[in-house]
Amino acid sequence: MKEAQDRVTAAAILIGNELLSGSVVDKNMHYIACKLVGAGIVLTEVRVIPDDCAVIAATVREMRSKVDYVFTTGGIGPTHDDITAECVAQAFDRPLIQHPETAKTLRAMFAEKGVEANAERMRMANMPEGAEPLKHQGSPVPGFRMENVYVLAGVPSIMRSMLDAAVPGLRKGKPVLSQSVRCDLSEGTLAHGLKLIQEEFAEHVDIGSYPLSREENFHVRLVIRGTDSAVNGDVAQRIKDMIGQLGGQIIPE
Amino acid sequence: MKEAQDRVTAAAILIGNELLSGSVVDKNMHYIACKLVGAGIVLTEVRVIPDDCAVIAATVREMRSKVDYVFTTGGIGPTHDDITAECVAQAFDRPLIQHPETAKTLRAMFAEKGVEANAERMRMANMPEGAEPLKHQGSPVPGFRMENVYVLAGVPSIMRSMLDAAVPGLRKGKPVLSQSVRCDLSEGTLAHGLKLIQEEFAEHVDIGSYPLSREENFHVRLVIRGTDSAVNGDVAQRIKDMIGQLGGQIIPE
Repeated sequence: MKEAQDRVTAAAILIGNELLSGSVVDKNMHYIACKLVGAGIVLTEVRVIPDDCAVIAATVREMRSKVDYVFTTGGIGPTHDDITAECVAQAFDRPLIQHPETAKTLRAMFAEKGVEANAERMRMANMPEGAEPLKHQGSPVPGFRMENVYVLAGVPSIMRSMLDAAVPGLRKGKPVLSQSVRCDLSEGTLAHGLKLIQEEFAEHVDIGSYPLSREENFHVRLVIRGTDSAVNGDVAQRIKDMIGQLGGQIIPE
Repeated sequence: MKEAQDRVTAAAILIGNELLSGSVVDKNMHYIACKLVGAGIVLTEVRVIPDDCAVIAATVREMRSKVDYVFTTGGIGPTHDDITAECVAQAFDRPLIQHPETAKTLRAMFAEKGVEANAERMRMANMPEGAEPLKHQGSPVPGFRMENVYVLAGVPSIMRSMLDAAVPGLRKGKPVLSQSVRCDLSEGTLAHGLKLIQEEFAEHVDIGSYPLSREENFHVRLVIRGTDSAVNGDVAQRIKDMIGQLGGQIIPE
Protein backbone atom coordinates (compact mmCIF):
# COMPACT_ATOMS: atom_id res chain seq x y z
CA MET A 1 0.00 0.00 0.00
CA LYS A 2 1.38 3.38 -0.97
CA GLU A 3 1.92 5.56 2.09
CA ALA A 4 -0.61 8.38 2.24
CA GLN A 5 0.84 11.89 2.03
CA ASP A 6 -1.24 12.88 5.04
CA ARG A 7 -0.40 9.77 7.06
CA VAL A 8 -0.64 10.32 10.82
CA THR A 9 1.63 8.06 12.88
CA ALA A 10 1.90 6.92 16.48
CA ALA A 11 4.02 4.74 18.74
CA ALA A 12 3.21 3.08 22.04
CA ILE A 13 5.68 2.64 24.89
CA LEU A 14 4.51 0.03 27.41
CA ILE A 15 6.45 0.64 30.63
CA GLY A 16 6.80 -2.05 33.26
CA ASN A 17 9.15 -4.72 34.61
CA GLU A 18 6.06 -6.87 35.09
CA LEU A 19 5.57 -7.22 31.31
CA LEU A 20 9.20 -8.18 30.69
CA SER A 21 9.36 -10.63 33.59
CA GLY A 22 6.10 -12.34 32.70
CA SER A 23 4.40 -11.35 35.99
CA VAL A 24 1.62 -9.66 34.04
CA VAL A 25 0.16 -10.43 30.60
CA ASP A 26 -0.16 -7.31 28.43
CA LYS A 27 -3.75 -6.35 27.75
CA ASN A 28 -3.13 -2.88 26.33
CA MET A 29 -1.35 -3.24 23.00
CA HIS A 30 -4.29 -4.70 21.09
CA TYR A 31 -6.71 -2.05 22.39
CA ILE A 32 -4.34 0.76 21.44
CA ALA A 33 -3.79 -0.77 17.97
CA CYS A 34 -7.52 -1.09 17.28
CA LYS A 35 -8.39 2.35 18.65
CA LEU A 36 -5.73 4.09 16.53
CA VAL A 37 -6.62 2.16 13.37
CA GLY A 38 -10.19 3.29 13.89
CA ALA A 39 -8.99 6.90 13.98
CA GLY A 40 -6.93 6.52 10.80
CA ILE A 41 -3.67 6.72 12.75
CA VAL A 42 -0.87 4.30 11.83
CA LEU A 43 0.76 2.61 14.82
CA THR A 44 4.31 2.19 13.52
CA GLU A 45 6.02 0.66 16.55
CA VAL A 46 5.46 -0.58 20.10
CA ARG A 47 8.24 -0.78 22.66
CA VAL A 48 8.04 -2.61 25.95
CA ILE A 49 10.64 -1.28 28.38
CA PRO A 50 11.54 -1.66 32.08
CA ASP A 51 11.00 0.74 35.01
CA ASP A 52 14.37 2.39 34.35
CA CYS A 53 14.38 6.17 34.17
CA ALA A 54 17.25 6.51 31.71
CA VAL A 55 15.64 4.01 29.34
CA ILE A 56 12.19 5.60 29.66
CA ALA A 57 13.48 9.14 29.03
CA ALA A 58 15.61 8.06 26.06
CA THR A 59 12.79 6.03 24.51
CA VAL A 60 10.27 8.88 24.86
CA ARG A 61 12.74 11.32 23.33
CA GLU A 62 13.53 9.03 20.40
CA MET A 63 9.99 7.96 19.60
CA ARG A 64 8.41 11.41 19.86
CA SER A 65 10.79 12.68 17.19
CA LYS A 66 9.85 9.81 14.85
CA VAL A 67 6.05 9.82 15.01
CA ASP A 68 3.21 12.29 15.42
CA TYR A 69 1.92 10.91 18.72
CA VAL A 70 3.42 8.79 21.49
CA PHE A 71 1.34 6.94 24.08
CA THR A 72 2.98 5.58 27.21
CA THR A 73 1.25 3.17 29.57
CA GLY A 74 2.09 2.37 33.16
CA GLY A 75 3.96 3.88 36.08
CA ILE A 76 1.66 6.76 37.08
CA GLY A 77 0.31 5.47 40.41
CA PRO A 78 1.37 6.36 43.98
CA THR A 79 4.01 3.67 44.65
CA HIS A 80 7.81 3.85 44.49
CA ASP A 81 7.88 1.99 41.15
CA ASP A 82 5.66 4.64 39.51
CA ILE A 83 8.31 6.83 37.91
CA THR A 84 6.90 7.68 34.49
CA ALA A 85 6.05 11.35 35.20
CA GLU A 86 9.57 12.17 36.35
CA CYS A 87 11.11 10.27 33.42
CA VAL A 88 8.94 12.13 30.90
CA ALA A 89 9.99 15.40 32.60
CA GLN A 90 13.62 14.32 32.06
CA ALA A 91 12.89 13.50 28.42
CA PHE A 92 11.71 17.11 27.95
CA ASP A 93 14.38 18.67 30.23
CA ARG A 94 11.59 20.16 32.31
CA PRO A 95 11.15 20.18 36.09
CA LEU A 96 8.55 17.89 37.63
CA ILE A 97 5.92 20.01 39.36
CA GLN A 98 2.71 19.41 41.26
CA HIS A 99 -0.09 20.42 38.92
CA PRO A 100 -2.25 22.75 41.06
CA GLU A 101 -5.68 21.95 39.62
CA THR A 102 -4.99 18.21 39.71
CA ALA A 103 -3.74 18.44 43.30
CA LYS A 104 -7.02 20.12 44.23
CA THR A 105 -9.05 17.41 42.48
CA LEU A 106 -7.08 14.67 44.23
CA ARG A 107 -7.45 16.28 47.68
CA ALA A 108 -11.22 16.51 47.17
CA MET A 109 -11.34 12.88 46.03
CA PHE A 110 -9.31 11.64 49.01
CA ALA A 111 -11.46 13.67 51.43
CA GLU A 112 -14.60 12.14 49.93
CA LYS A 113 -13.13 8.64 50.25
CA GLY A 114 -12.00 9.40 53.81
CA VAL A 115 -8.36 8.56 53.08
CA GLU A 116 -5.33 10.67 53.88
CA ALA A 117 -3.89 12.89 51.14
CA ASN A 118 -0.44 11.55 51.98
CA ALA A 119 2.73 12.38 50.05
CA GLU A 120 2.56 9.13 48.08
CA ARG A 121 -1.04 9.62 46.95
CA MET A 122 -0.29 13.24 46.02
CA ARG A 123 2.50 12.05 43.66
CA MET A 124 -0.34 11.35 41.22
CA ALA A 125 -0.63 15.16 40.74
CA ASN A 126 2.99 15.41 39.54
CA MET A 127 3.60 16.30 35.90
CA PRO A 128 6.37 17.89 33.87
CA GLU A 129 6.04 21.68 33.81
CA GLY A 130 3.86 22.59 30.84
CA ALA A 131 1.88 19.34 30.78
CA GLU A 132 -1.92 19.29 30.60
CA PRO A 133 -4.00 16.84 32.60
CA LEU A 134 -5.89 14.31 30.51
CA LYS A 135 -9.31 14.04 32.11
CA HIS A 136 -11.40 10.96 31.47
CA GLN A 137 -14.50 9.07 32.55
CA GLY A 138 -12.80 6.24 34.44
CA SER A 139 -11.47 8.07 37.49
CA PRO A 140 -10.88 11.61 38.81
CA VAL A 141 -7.12 10.88 38.59
CA PRO A 142 -6.05 12.16 35.17
CA GLY A 143 -3.32 11.08 32.81
CA PHE A 144 -1.44 13.91 31.13
CA ARG A 145 -0.27 15.20 27.77
CA MET A 146 3.14 16.78 27.31
CA GLU A 147 3.33 18.15 23.76
CA ASN A 148 2.88 15.04 21.55
CA VAL A 149 3.33 12.53 24.39
CA TYR A 150 0.24 11.10 26.12
CA VAL A 151 0.93 9.50 29.48
CA LEU A 152 -1.66 6.84 30.33
CA ALA A 153 -2.23 4.39 33.18
CA GLY A 154 -1.19 0.73 32.98
CA VAL A 155 -4.35 -0.78 34.47
CA PRO A 156 -6.30 -1.72 31.31
CA SER A 157 -9.70 -0.28 32.27
CA ILE A 158 -8.15 3.09 33.19
CA MET A 159 -5.81 3.08 30.20
CA ARG A 160 -8.80 2.57 27.88
CA SER A 161 -10.71 5.38 29.48
CA MET A 162 -7.74 7.74 29.10
CA LEU A 163 -7.05 6.74 25.49
CA ASP A 164 -10.73 7.13 24.60
CA ALA A 165 -10.53 10.66 26.03
CA ALA A 166 -7.35 11.48 24.09
CA VAL A 167 -8.32 10.24 20.62
CA PRO A 168 -10.99 12.86 19.75
CA GLY A 169 -8.31 15.58 20.07
CA LEU A 170 -5.85 13.94 17.69
CA ARG A 171 -5.30 14.77 14.05
CA LYS A 172 -6.87 11.97 12.01
CA GLY A 173 -5.56 10.22 8.91
CA LYS A 174 -7.47 8.37 6.24
CA PRO A 175 -8.75 5.24 8.01
CA VAL A 176 -7.22 1.97 6.90
CA LEU A 177 -10.04 -0.53 6.43
CA SER A 178 -9.59 -4.25 6.50
CA GLN A 179 -11.42 -7.24 5.13
CA SER A 180 -10.51 -10.85 5.72
CA VAL A 181 -11.00 -14.15 3.93
CA ARG A 182 -10.48 -17.47 5.69
CA CYS A 183 -9.90 -20.70 3.80
CA ASP A 184 -8.83 -24.31 4.17
CA LEU A 185 -5.82 -24.23 1.83
CA SER A 186 -2.22 -24.12 3.07
CA GLU A 187 -0.07 -21.02 2.72
CA GLY A 188 2.23 -22.90 0.36
CA THR A 189 -0.69 -23.54 -2.02
CA LEU A 190 -1.91 -19.95 -1.87
CA ALA A 191 1.45 -18.18 -1.94
CA HIS A 192 2.08 -17.91 -5.68
CA GLY A 193 -1.34 -16.54 -6.64
CA LEU A 194 -1.42 -14.30 -3.61
CA LYS A 195 1.90 -12.76 -4.55
CA LEU A 196 0.59 -11.93 -8.04
CA ILE A 197 -2.53 -10.29 -6.61
CA GLN A 198 -0.41 -8.33 -4.09
CA GLU A 199 1.87 -7.13 -6.91
CA GLU A 200 -1.09 -6.06 -9.04
CA PHE A 201 -2.63 -4.04 -6.21
CA ALA A 202 0.63 -2.95 -4.53
CA GLU A 203 -0.36 0.73 -4.64
CA HIS A 204 -3.70 0.17 -2.95
CA VAL A 205 -3.62 -2.69 -0.44
CA ASP A 206 -1.39 -4.77 1.81
CA ILE A 207 -2.34 -8.43 1.93
CA GLY A 208 -1.29 -10.36 5.02
CA SER A 209 -1.39 -14.14 5.30
CA TYR A 210 -1.80 -15.62 8.78
CA PRO A 211 -1.83 -19.34 9.42
CA LEU A 212 -4.15 -20.28 12.29
CA SER A 213 -3.49 -22.80 15.01
CA ARG A 214 -4.19 -26.50 15.23
CA GLU A 215 -7.35 -25.68 17.22
CA GLU A 216 -8.51 -23.66 14.23
CA ASN A 217 -7.73 -26.54 11.83
CA PHE A 218 -4.62 -24.81 10.46
CA HIS A 219 -6.84 -22.60 8.32
CA VAL A 220 -5.27 -19.52 6.77
CA ARG A 221 -6.68 -16.03 7.24
CA LEU A 222 -5.91 -13.52 4.52
CA VAL A 223 -6.30 -9.91 5.56
CA ILE A 224 -6.65 -7.15 2.97
CA ARG A 225 -5.88 -3.68 4.31
CA GLY A 226 -6.37 -0.46 2.39
CA THR A 227 -8.09 2.89 2.52
CA ASP A 228 -10.68 2.21 -0.21
CA SER A 229 -13.35 -0.30 0.76
CA ALA A 230 -14.38 -0.91 -2.86
CA VAL A 231 -10.80 -1.83 -3.80
CA ASN A 232 -10.52 -4.02 -0.70
CA GLY A 233 -13.69 -5.78 -1.80
CA ASP A 234 -12.34 -6.30 -5.33
CA VAL A 235 -9.14 -7.80 -3.96
CA ALA A 236 -11.12 -10.03 -1.58
CA GLN A 237 -13.15 -11.29 -4.55
CA ARG A 238 -10.00 -11.98 -6.56
CA ILE A 239 -8.64 -13.97 -3.62
CA LYS A 240 -11.89 -15.92 -3.26
CA ASP A 241 -11.85 -16.73 -6.99
CA MET A 242 -8.28 -17.96 -6.68
CA ILE A 243 -9.17 -20.15 -3.69
CA GLY A 244 -12.01 -21.68 -5.70
CA GLN A 245 -9.72 -22.33 -8.70
CA LEU A 246 -7.24 -24.07 -6.38
CA GLY A 247 -10.00 -26.35 -5.07
CA GLY A 248 -10.26 -24.71 -1.66
CA GLN A 249 -13.22 -23.72 0.47
CA ILE A 250 -14.01 -20.33 1.98
CA ILE A 251 -14.61 -20.78 5.73
CA PRO A 252 -17.00 -18.37 7.45
CA GLU A 253 -15.23 -16.48 10.27
CA MET B 1 18.01 -5.12 42.79
CA LYS B 2 21.70 -4.79 42.03
CA GLU B 3 22.53 -5.97 38.54
CA ALA B 4 24.42 -9.24 38.61
CA GLN B 5 27.94 -9.11 37.14
CA ASP B 6 27.14 -12.18 35.07
CA ARG B 7 23.74 -10.95 33.93
CA VAL B 8 22.63 -12.46 30.62
CA THR B 9 20.28 -10.28 28.58
CA ALA B 10 17.87 -10.71 25.71
CA ALA B 11 15.47 -8.73 23.54
CA ALA B 12 12.49 -9.85 21.49
CA ILE B 13 11.45 -8.35 18.17
CA LEU B 14 7.88 -9.21 17.22
CA ILE B 15 7.52 -8.67 13.49
CA GLY B 16 4.14 -8.19 11.87
CA ASN B 17 1.74 -5.58 10.53
CA GLU B 18 -1.04 -7.71 12.03
CA LEU B 19 0.06 -6.88 15.59
CA LEU B 20 0.26 -3.14 14.93
CA SER B 21 -3.06 -3.00 13.08
CA GLY B 22 -4.92 -5.02 15.69
CA SER B 23 -5.75 -7.85 13.25
CA VAL B 24 -4.04 -10.34 15.57
CA VAL B 25 -3.65 -10.35 19.36
CA ASP B 26 -0.07 -11.07 20.44
CA LYS B 27 0.30 -14.42 22.20
CA ASN B 28 4.07 -14.65 22.13
CA MET B 29 5.49 -11.94 24.41
CA HIS B 30 4.33 -13.49 27.68
CA TYR B 31 5.64 -16.95 26.76
CA ILE B 32 9.04 -15.54 25.78
CA ALA B 33 9.21 -13.49 29.01
CA CYS B 34 8.41 -16.49 31.23
CA LYS B 35 10.72 -18.87 29.37
CA LEU B 36 13.69 -16.50 29.61
CA VAL B 37 13.07 -15.66 33.27
CA GLY B 38 13.09 -19.39 33.95
CA ALA B 39 16.52 -19.62 32.31
CA GLY B 40 17.93 -16.71 34.32
CA ILE B 41 18.00 -14.47 31.25
CA VAL B 42 16.83 -10.87 31.61
CA LEU B 43 14.46 -9.71 28.87
CA THR B 44 15.37 -6.03 28.66
CA GLU B 45 13.14 -4.88 25.82
CA VAL B 46 10.50 -5.99 23.34
CA ARG B 47 9.87 -4.20 20.07
CA VAL B 48 6.87 -4.72 17.84
CA ILE B 49 7.63 -3.60 14.30
CA PRO B 50 6.00 -3.76 10.85
CA ASP B 51 6.82 -5.96 7.83
CA ASP B 52 9.27 -3.36 6.54
CA CYS B 53 12.70 -4.63 5.56
CA ALA B 54 14.62 -1.46 6.41
CA VAL B 55 13.01 -1.30 9.86
CA ILE B 56 13.55 -5.02 10.53
CA ALA B 57 17.22 -4.93 9.49
CA ALA B 58 17.94 -1.77 11.50
CA THR B 59 16.16 -3.11 14.59
CA VAL B 60 17.99 -6.44 14.47
CA ARG B 61 21.32 -4.66 14.05
CA GLU B 62 20.65 -2.28 16.96
CA MET B 63 19.26 -4.80 19.40
CA ARG B 64 21.87 -7.49 18.81
CA SER B 65 24.60 -5.03 19.77
CA LYS B 66 22.79 -4.16 23.02
CA VAL B 67 21.92 -7.59 24.42
CA ASP B 68 23.34 -11.11 24.48
CA TYR B 69 20.50 -12.74 22.57
CA VAL B 70 17.82 -11.49 20.18
CA PHE B 71 14.68 -13.46 19.34
CA THR B 72 12.56 -12.47 16.37
CA THR B 73 9.08 -13.85 15.76
CA GLY B 74 7.09 -13.90 12.55
CA GLY B 75 7.64 -13.64 8.83
CA ILE B 76 9.29 -16.98 8.03
CA GLY B 77 6.52 -18.73 6.11
CA PRO B 78 6.09 -19.15 2.34
CA THR B 79 4.00 -16.07 1.46
CA HIS B 80 5.03 -12.70 0.01
CA ASP B 81 4.75 -11.00 3.42
CA ASP B 82 7.29 -13.41 4.95
CA ILE B 83 10.45 -11.35 4.60
CA THR B 84 12.30 -11.88 7.89
CA ALA B 85 15.07 -14.15 6.53
CA GLU B 86 16.10 -11.66 3.85
CA CYS B 87 15.94 -8.75 6.32
CA VAL B 88 18.15 -10.58 8.82
CA ALA B 89 20.58 -11.31 5.98
CA GLN B 90 20.61 -7.55 5.28
CA ALA B 91 21.23 -6.81 8.96
CA PHE B 92 24.37 -8.99 8.78
CA ASP B 93 25.39 -7.87 5.27
CA ARG B 94 25.27 -11.48 4.15
CA PRO B 95 23.66 -13.00 1.08
CA LEU B 96 20.45 -14.97 1.49
CA ILE B 97 21.06 -18.56 0.42
CA GLN B 98 19.07 -21.78 0.23
CA HIS B 99 20.32 -23.92 3.14
CA PRO B 100 21.05 -27.29 1.45
CA GLU B 101 20.17 -29.61 4.35
CA THR B 102 16.97 -27.71 5.09
CA ALA B 103 16.00 -27.75 1.40
CA LYS B 104 16.40 -31.55 1.44
CA THR B 105 14.27 -31.86 4.59
CA LEU B 106 11.56 -29.68 3.08
CA ARG B 107 11.50 -31.59 -0.22
CA ALA B 108 11.09 -34.86 1.70
CA MET B 109 8.31 -33.34 3.81
CA PHE B 110 6.45 -32.00 0.76
CA ALA B 111 6.81 -35.35 -1.05
CA GLU B 112 5.37 -37.15 1.97
CA LYS B 113 2.46 -34.71 2.13
CA GLY B 114 1.93 -35.04 -1.61
CA VAL B 115 2.25 -31.31 -2.24
CA GLU B 116 4.45 -29.60 -4.78
CA ALA B 117 7.84 -28.26 -3.66
CA ASN B 118 7.05 -24.98 -5.39
CA ALA B 119 9.25 -21.89 -5.27
CA GLU B 120 7.14 -20.30 -2.53
CA ARG B 121 7.26 -23.34 -0.23
CA MET B 122 11.02 -23.66 -0.81
CA ARG B 123 11.51 -20.07 0.44
CA MET B 124 11.28 -21.63 3.92
CA ALA B 125 14.77 -23.07 3.34
CA ASN B 126 16.27 -19.61 2.81
CA MET B 127 18.67 -18.29 5.46
CA PRO B 128 21.50 -15.78 5.61
CA GLU B 129 24.83 -17.38 4.67
CA GLY B 130 26.38 -18.75 7.87
CA ALA B 131 23.08 -19.35 9.69
CA GLU B 132 22.31 -22.65 11.38
CA PRO B 133 18.87 -24.26 11.23
CA LEU B 134 17.06 -24.39 14.56
CA LYS B 135 15.43 -27.82 14.65
CA HIS B 136 12.51 -28.39 16.96
CA GLN B 137 9.73 -30.80 17.85
CA GLY B 138 6.80 -28.86 16.38
CA SER B 139 7.48 -29.22 12.65
CA PRO B 140 10.20 -30.33 10.23
CA VAL B 141 10.48 -26.68 9.11
CA PRO B 142 13.24 -25.17 11.24
CA GLY B 143 13.81 -21.65 12.50
CA PHE B 144 17.41 -20.50 12.33
CA ARG B 145 20.17 -18.90 14.36
CA MET B 146 22.49 -16.29 12.91
CA GLU B 147 25.18 -15.54 15.51
CA ASN B 148 23.22 -14.19 18.51
CA VAL B 149 19.94 -13.75 16.62
CA TYR B 150 17.31 -16.51 16.80
CA VAL B 151 14.67 -16.33 14.10
CA LEU B 152 11.42 -17.96 15.20
CA ALA B 153 7.95 -18.45 13.71
CA GLY B 154 5.02 -16.18 14.53
CA VAL B 155 2.39 -18.89 15.00
CA PRO B 156 2.41 -19.37 18.79
CA SER B 157 2.58 -23.17 18.92
CA ILE B 158 5.53 -23.26 16.50
CA MET B 159 7.23 -20.27 18.14
CA ARG B 160 7.08 -22.05 21.49
CA SER B 161 8.52 -25.23 20.07
CA MET B 162 11.41 -23.30 18.48
CA LEU B 163 12.13 -21.26 21.62
CA ASP B 164 12.05 -24.40 23.76
CA ALA B 165 14.64 -25.90 21.41
CA ALA B 166 16.84 -22.79 21.54
CA VAL B 167 16.95 -22.17 25.28
CA PRO B 168 19.05 -25.20 26.36
CA GLY B 169 21.92 -23.89 24.18
CA LEU B 170 21.95 -20.40 25.73
CA ARG B 171 24.29 -19.13 28.41
CA LYS B 172 22.29 -18.92 31.64
CA GLY B 173 22.28 -16.24 34.33
CA LYS B 174 21.30 -16.52 37.94
CA PRO B 175 17.53 -17.06 37.87
CA VAL B 176 15.40 -14.21 39.16
CA LEU B 177 12.77 -15.72 41.45
CA SER B 178 9.52 -14.05 42.31
CA GLN B 179 7.03 -14.22 45.12
CA SER B 180 3.78 -12.31 45.32
CA VAL B 181 1.46 -11.05 48.04
CA ARG B 182 -2.10 -9.94 47.28
CA CYS B 183 -4.06 -7.74 49.66
CA ASP B 184 -7.19 -5.63 49.98
CA LEU B 185 -5.52 -2.29 50.75
CA SER B 186 -5.16 0.50 48.19
CA GLU B 187 -1.80 1.42 46.70
CA GLY B 188 -1.99 4.83 48.38
CA THR B 189 -2.22 3.16 51.79
CA LEU B 190 0.64 0.77 51.09
CA ALA B 191 2.96 3.15 49.27
CA HIS B 192 4.86 4.73 52.16
CA GLY B 193 5.74 1.49 54.00
CA LEU B 194 6.47 -0.26 50.73
CA LYS B 195 8.92 2.43 49.74
CA LEU B 196 10.81 2.01 53.03
CA ILE B 197 11.02 -1.77 52.57
CA GLN B 198 12.18 -1.31 48.97
CA GLU B 199 14.88 1.13 50.12
CA GLU B 200 16.08 -1.24 52.85
CA PHE B 201 16.36 -4.17 50.42
CA ALA B 202 17.38 -2.15 47.34
CA GLU B 203 20.46 -4.29 46.71
CA HIS B 204 18.56 -7.56 46.79
CA VAL B 205 15.03 -7.23 45.44
CA ASP B 206 12.74 -5.20 43.20
CA ILE B 207 9.24 -4.77 44.57
CA GLY B 208 6.49 -4.09 42.06
CA SER B 209 2.99 -2.93 42.97
CA TYR B 210 0.17 -3.81 40.56
CA PRO B 211 -3.41 -2.72 41.14
CA LEU B 212 -5.89 -5.31 39.86
CA SER B 213 -9.09 -4.65 37.98
CA ARG B 214 -12.62 -4.03 39.15
CA GLU B 215 -13.38 -7.72 38.51
CA GLU B 216 -10.63 -8.55 40.99
CA ASN B 217 -12.05 -6.13 43.57
CA PHE B 218 -9.29 -3.56 42.97
CA HIS B 219 -6.93 -5.70 45.06
CA VAL B 220 -3.22 -4.92 44.87
CA ARG B 221 -0.62 -7.55 43.98
CA LEU B 222 2.89 -6.93 45.29
CA VAL B 223 5.59 -8.86 43.47
CA ILE B 224 9.02 -9.37 45.03
CA ARG B 225 11.73 -10.29 42.54
CA GLY B 226 15.28 -11.28 43.46
CA THR B 227 17.83 -14.05 43.04
CA ASP B 228 17.77 -15.29 46.68
CA SER B 229 14.56 -17.07 47.63
CA ALA B 230 15.28 -16.70 51.38
CA VAL B 231 15.60 -12.91 51.02
CA ASN B 232 12.47 -12.83 48.86
CA GLY B 233 10.67 -14.71 51.64
CA ASP B 234 11.91 -12.27 54.30
CA VAL B 235 10.72 -9.31 52.24
CA ALA B 236 7.34 -10.99 51.65
CA GLN B 237 6.98 -11.49 55.41
CA ARG B 238 7.86 -7.84 56.07
CA ILE B 239 5.21 -6.79 53.58
CA LYS B 240 2.62 -9.10 55.17
CA ASP B 241 3.42 -7.69 58.61
CA MET B 242 2.98 -4.16 57.26
CA ILE B 243 -0.36 -5.06 55.68
CA GLY B 244 -1.52 -6.44 59.05
CA GLN B 245 -0.41 -3.30 60.88
CA LEU B 246 -2.33 -1.17 58.37
CA GLY B 247 -5.48 -3.21 59.06
CA GLY B 248 -5.48 -5.02 55.73
CA GLN B 249 -6.10 -8.65 54.78
CA ILE B 250 -3.87 -10.96 52.78
CA ILE B 251 -5.92 -12.46 49.93
CA PRO B 252 -5.00 -15.95 48.71
CA GLU B 253 -4.09 -15.87 44.99
